[in-house]
Amino acid sequence: MNRYVQQGDNPDITEERLKATFDVDRFTEFYHGGLKRLKSRRKVERYLEEHAELRDIRPTPFMSRDELIDNSIRKLAGMAKFNEMIDLNDIEKTTYFLQMVHVRDSMPFSLHYLMFLPVLNSQASPEQLATWMPLALSGTVIGTYAQTEMGHGTNLSKLETTATYDPNTQEFILHTPTISGAKWWPGSLGKFCNHAIIVANLWTQGKCEGPHPFWVQIRDSETHEALKNVRLGDIGPKLSLNGSDNGYLIFDNFRIPRENMLMRHSKVLPDGTYVKPPHSKLAYGGMVFVRSMMVRDIANHLANAVTIATRYSAVRRQGEPVPGKGEVKILDYQTQQYRIFPYIAKAIAFRIAGEELQEVSKQLKKGEASQLPDIHALSSGLKALVTFEVQQGIEQCRLACGGHGYSHASGIPELSAFSCGSCTYEGDNLVLMLQVAKYLTKAVTSPVASGICAYLHKKSSALQSALSSHKTYSDLQIVQDFEHVTRRAVLQAMDKLKIASGTMPDAWNRCSVELSKAARWHIRLYIVRIVLSKISTAPEDLKPVLRTLAKLYIFDLQVSNKGHFMEEGYMSAQQIDELKEGIWDAMSTIRPDAVSIVDAFAIHEIELKSVLGRRDGNVYPGLMEWTKHSQLNEKDVPVAFDKYLAPIIKKLRSRL
Amino acid sequence: MNRYVQQGDNPDITEERLKATFDVDRFTEFYHGGLKRLKSRRKVERYLEEHAELRDIRPTPFMSRDELIDNSIRKLAGMAKFNEMIDLNDIEKTTYFLQMVHVRDSMPFSLHYLMFLPVLNSQASPEQLATWMPLALSGTVIGTYAQTEMGHGTNLSKLETTATYDPNTQEFILHTPTISGAKWWPGSLGKFCNHAIIVANLWTQGKCEGPHPFWVQIRDSETHEALKNVRLGDIGPKLSLNGSDNGYLIFDNFRIPRENMLMRHSKVLPDGTYVKPPHSKLAYGGMVFVRSMMVRDIANHLANAVTIATRYSAVRRQGEPVPGKGEVKILDYQTQQYRIFPYIAKAIAFRIAGEELQEVSKQLKKGEASQLPDIHALSSGLKALVTFEVQQGIEQCRLACGGHGYSHASGIPELSAFSCGSCTYEGDNLVLMLQVAKYLTKAVTSPVASGICAYLHKKSSALQSALSSHKTYSDLQIVQDFEHVTRRAVLQAMDKLKIASGTMPDAWNRCSVELSKAARWHIRLYIVRIVLSKISTAPEDLKPVLRTLAKLYIFDLQVSNKGHFMEEGYMSAQQIDELKEGIWDAMSTIRPDAVSIVDAFAIHEIELKSVLGRRDGNVYPGLMEWTKHSQLNEKDVPVAFDKYLAPIIKKLRSRL
Repeated sequence: MNRYVQQGDNPDITEERLKATFDVDRFTEFYHGGLKRLKSRRKVERYLEEHAELRDIRPTPFMSRDELIDNSIRKLAGMAKFNEMIDLNDIEKTTYFLQMVHVRDSMPFSLHYLMFLPVLNSQASPEQLATWMPLALSGTVIGTYAQTEMGHGTNLSKLETTATYDPNTQEFILHTPTISGAKWWPGSLGKFCNHAIIVANLWTQGKCEGPHPFWVQIRDSETHEALKNVRLGDIGPKLSLNGSDNGYLIFDNFRIPRENMLMRHSKVLPDGTYVKPPHSKLAYGGMVFVRSMMVRDIANHLANAVTIATRYSAVRRQGEPVPGKGEVKILDYQTQQYRIFPYIAKAIAFRIAGEELQEVSKQLKKGEASQLPDIHALSSGLKALVTFEVQQGIEQCRLACGGHGYSHASGIPELSAFSCGSCTYEGDNLVLMLQVAKYLTKAVTSPVASGICAYLHKKSSALQSALSSHKTYSDLQIVQDFEHVTRRAVLQAMDKLKIASGTMPDAWNRCSVELSKAARWHIRLYIVRIVLSKISTAPEDLKPVLRTLAKLYIFDLQVSNKGHFMEEGYMSAQQIDELKEGIWDAMSTIRPDAVSIVDAFAIHEIELKSVLGRRDGNVYPGLMEWTKHSQLNEKDVPVAFDKYLAPIIKKLRSRL
Repeated sequence: MNRYVQQGDNPDITEERLKATFDVDRFTEFYHGGLKRLKSRRKVERYLEEHAELRDIRPTPFMSRDELIDNSIRKLAGMAKFNEMIDLNDIEKTTYFLQMVHVRDSMPFSLHYLMFLPVLNSQASPEQLATWMPLALSGTVIGTYAQTEMGHGTNLSKLETTATYDPNTQEFILHTPTISGAKWWPGSLGKFCNHAIIVANLWTQGKCEGPHPFWVQIRDSETHEALKNVRLGDIGPKLSLNGSDNGYLIFDNFRIPRENMLMRHSKVLPDGTYVKPPHSKLAYGGMVFVRSMMVRDIANHLANAVTIATRYSAVRRQGEPVPGKGEVKILDYQTQQYRIFPYIAKAIAFRIAGEELQEVSKQLKKGEASQLPDIHALSSGLKALVTFEVQQGIEQCRLACGGHGYSHASGIPELSAFSCGSCTYEGDNLVLMLQVAKYLTKAVTSPVASGICAYLHKKSSALQSALSSHKTYSDLQIVQDFEHVTRRAVLQAMDKLKIASGTMPDAWNRCSVELSKAARWHIRLYIVRIVLSKISTAPEDLKPVLRTLAKLYIFDLQVSNKGHFMEEGYMSAQQIDELKEGIWDAMSTIRPDAVSIVDAFAIHEIELKSVLGRRDGNVYPGLMEWTKHSQLNEKDVPVAFDKYLAPIIKKLRSRL
């Protein structure tokens, strides 16, 4: 029996669930990577259900900034009490627990775990680690990572904060010379942390040795007051993540001991002598892992959005195509399906790509360094492509919910605001795509191409796609066609770069739009290949529905970019039409399964936070219930009416 | 001298302004439709500068919902005092005044002006008008228009609210039979209005006569309390527009006199006899006017966003392509230009289209009814296309501002949240595009094609585009190429519809994605034609910059949709490459003019509400200034820290 069918549900949604052509639980198992991981998820969910202290008192959209902060810090303190759920050896479970507690708001100390500890771990010397790590893990030191400045992001060498070594006192003097050099954006830096790893340009013996990390206490351990000569504050409200501060920090000749420089790689000796690191290259492994987590996370945001839009579309009725036959479910409209279904397919494709990247990054840790440039480029490009397309998808889901999508009751505004920051943090998407392009320029000219770039060196085997019917279009043919288009895009951009006049930076700049577009094809090709390969090893009973979803993803990609496939007659207008038919076919096939597919994502209602996306489909009573939280509804006549309007109206009425 | 260059400005932005190749004031005059309108704008701006009571006390992103409401109602009350600026005979000036007072939040009584008064005007009988209009204009009756229900939007015939005539008492009984029949969404319905025009299905003599409008008092004139048997409330927070309620209303057998039905068109006689309206068709004229206003408004939101992104990109420096030469302005990167410049061009193109539509709708009022279907379709399609593309543009502008785009200091989150509702209200975009498609099916088969559809009946004159160089690509050739592509898209969709099997509603549904895409081409063609024609009559000195912008808009449209232009070899890959070169060329030409073009939009800082988009370019001091508004910065140690974290940390420290 389908676990999602329950007593009291809206019959319109039950009807959908009874139509499913596959076993929902088996899909969930596949989607979440096995029963073991699923069970661990369910444990977290039960825990949250049982511990109201870890949940919101009322829906966050009804909270002011002060209340949001109170709410998130209260939950954070609650977590400290229930830290049995935090297990640094089970990242999967711990992450899910943190995510379920904080859902779509900032986890105020996330940078402590995501940046402060890992950087410490990789940059502090063994002696430093022995001293600091116990403190950092004790819960008394709350740290963040402060690199970005108001006027400086990706270009580290231009950071304005300086750490000038004074051999007389054997101290570093940290200083912020201008407003644009203020540390700006680090999570919780302004209000809730008492320590930070500060990245500053190191000056010693009159010479700048470039950016280095320092361990810096910024607030008093007892009083939590900002230390003297450290100005700290909140940078103000953001699109989302308002349950904590994003902070600023300004140093006024603030002194720290020499030993506070993180000295695993480079050192400053007591006399001020700078000792270079033995290897100048940093390890990218950590960055790849963070990005693989991001890709999966962001794909999950899209999974949330399509869950909401699909379930709502199954209970919302509007329009009566055949007069007298009653209004139909909006999910029956092709235009509505076209808004949602390709994004269901994308949510799955992106998740698969993220999982794969995670696997690969784990292997990296075990030392397969030769693949590092491939994987690093891949992680950059995937992050950039997925974060952007997920935003577009969430917006389409919002539109698919009609007017109610604009209400916070839908949950989509929060989803969208929360996840869209990902296009910028952990590397601006444009900058990342150009890194992929730079990597591709090397791959094209390299005599030995790695597996992932082998296609660049293949001769195009055909002048025309082999596609005759979308029903017989094989995985091999699909990959060939994507390889053809990607190769063409990459080689053309490289050719353009080669013949571009001017200096190299100039030429690069003038080709950069085309280079980044070519890079995007490289990433698309990777996703297409991984998705097809993953599905070919899926359980037999799930293959039909998964294949239909994959084809929808792929055909939609081709039709939306048909110009690329049609160049030089590689595909004809008839072949594109055939792919279109493939899309309409796939959508009809998915239609009866749609609700069950999103059910199979198994997103808990604590995470979904949506009246429109409720499992039970009882949207309308839910919307009415929702209004009870509104502060405006506490009084019949609002305060502002009596305060401002009543006197005016009274006066006007006296004149009538 | 350029009025935007002032003492104390950031030299990086002054440098830009000194490079302009055209006279900014002359561009402003062109953009705003003449000196007279411009002067009237400036008058409003000075008025706002002088009247602090009409402005926000602090930036709205720092306000809670209660404060937002207090703020907007306070300004509303202020307006009542300064109503010298409200002149119903000068819609342009009045609208701008209202917009400048309320900027990017709800004008709480906007529906009073936009819907309540106009509907009264067109639906009330002369006797009713004589009674009600003085009340409606007196300021004592505050009305809204309540049509939409929780479960019912566009399909009016399915509204659940009933008005059942009781001949015994000569009253209508208004009733809400279910939750989904609650009136839902109307602006200010829940809290601030005392009257509403209610649309309900009329029952008399046992028969339903369809939806009709009624004049209904919902709150007491003295106490402002909700009347008995009327349940009123706020539906909760939304993406934006939180300075007022969007309301719900539930009737429990609420009685109103027979005379309260708006009886200009249909009537119910005292004995309950229903008298049909003489003409069953409603006038679309008003709707066209509202949409033409919307198109202009929404284009203006995009103008705001590109102003912010362009000015910020001229003062933000990042990256050092030539080592040692210093960081460059991010506006110099081709990828950044590609993010912003096409949307500068779109902001202008959409404004031109909106202005044209407004002109046409004014002529309609003078009685040119034969064009009504063309214009109605056009207004639907333009609204749908422009609102969606503006959203995409605003998001690109946000991304173009990097991390700071995510902060409310950029002003872009508010812009985006405020304007994205326009994709849904005044007609869901998908529904509207399908209306255009329906109109096109008629135009294709009609023996006499109107001017706007004449292209559908033209034989394609060429098998290949005449484009040889983007420099010599003439207006005529451009229009021909767009006509070709549009005709092809429309005819293909129609052919598909013709051969589709099943019933007509079924066939229509299965072709609806392609039909709506074809409709979009019809609208694009219209914009391209209007833009070229408008620019051909522009002042000579402005023509070069305007033509470059138009070409950027057009070439980008072609390259982004190259598949459509390449079908059946109409354009070759070489021709598409030529258009790409045209884009890069146009962007280089625009580069030195970019800041001055957005300056020429002449958006006042009260409207812009952006630290990043400040005229003076002093972004970094501005960001620091901005933090002073943060409630979190009122205390060094936040309340939540002492409340929740201090005790835990103390305990943990005692164990160290």
